[in-house]
Amino acid sequence: MTRTGRRPGDSSITRSEVLEAARSTFAEFGYEGATLRRIATAAGVDVALISHYFGNKEDLFIAVHDLPINPSDVADVFDGVDDDAIGDRVARFLLGVLAADNSAAISLMRAASTNASAAAMLREFIDRTLIDPIAAMIDVPDGRERVALVASHLLGVLFARDILGVRELTSASIDELVDAIGPTIHRYLTEPTRSTTAA
Amino acid sequence: MTRTGRRPGDSSITRSEVLEAARSTFAEFGYEGATLRRIATAAGVDVALISHYFGNKEDLFIAVHDLPINPSDVADVFDGVDDDAIGDRVARFLLGVLAADNSAAISLMRAASTNASAAAMLREFIDRTLIDPIAAMIDVPDGRERVALVASHLLGVLFARDILGVRELTSASIDELVDAIGPTIHRYLTEPTRSTTAA
Repeated sequence: MTRTGRRPGDSSITRSEVLEAARSTFAEFGYEGATLRRIATAAGVDVALISHYFGNKEDLFIAVHDLPINPSDVADVFDGVDDDAIGDRVARFLLGVLAADNSAAISLMRAASTNASAAAMLREFIDRTLIDPIAAMIDVPDGRERVALVASHLLGVLFARDILGVRELTSASIDELVDAIGPTIHRYLTEPTRSTTAA
Repeated sequence: MTRTGRRPGDSSITRSEVLEAARSTFAEFGYEGATLRRIATAAGVDVALISHYFGNKEDLFIAVHDLPINPSDVADVFDGVDDDAIGDRVARFLLGVLAADNSAAISLMRAASTNASAAAMLREFIDRTLIDPIAAMIDVPDGRERVALVASHLLGVLFARDILGVRELTSASIDELVDAIGPTIHRYLTEPTRSTTAA
């Protein structure tokens, strides 16, 4: 039995099947290349069904990129952790969520590279989910700049590892990456910066 | 006088004008979106003229992304520098070249996000131009992994600053970025890693 041509009302198609097909199509082709037709083919449904559930491509994109982190998750990462462990905790939490296979974060990074509205979406996500809550918790004057450096390093690791496939990073386990990057995150979040310590 | 429709042999069109138009079109639209037609329009020439000079789109892409760094430039960065200054020197050199306006590096990052051959090209560029020469110079067993971390951080800063437009990074000068990132690069290149020091 072919899956092509099923219509709204066919109860065997779930909203989540379309989301899953859209997620992997965005990840593979980027925002521009992931046409509704391609997504429909991947899901084995009509384009009409996608419009029925999600509206246009941007609406679908937003639905797909409901990233699995929210500001209160990030606050939880800090909860009850002493200073010494914070770099590792942040690295492990973020790499664990963001670097998963078929991660929405990677898909959104790809899309952001060629599409201004996707770039704005990812920037807002970083603002709202990382910079705002972490800067509030570390509570130093240049807190936002510090968290932006942390975010940039993590984005760079994802870009080099998952988009470029840099061997030295693809061959490392999450534990090894946390071990390598945790101390840097720790220093950005907790130690005096050079400009703070300079006369 | 319109610039459209000039043909091979019209000496007023230079190879470098086509390259410049291609560079900004790749930067704006990414590899997939930058059609030869779009590039021709931007340059005010016929598609035939582009083929005449450069062959197909991939050939043109390679010509555009002759990035302004080569392994011997990187070796020069290390030349005569004592250990304490190396993080800042590397940060300043790479950010200075890579984060310039309309930088080929940003264009190549955009293209790499949605196109596997561009990703392979950027990966090879990082290998040949950064990881190989710097790992040879620092000469420690995990040297390649260390330089991969440096490269990932720099890629992340470019991604967050120039592709996403993260405010905390766009508002920083190159000097401020070097001040913030230099010590991290220094530690990656010169200090014992946790896994080296662990029992």
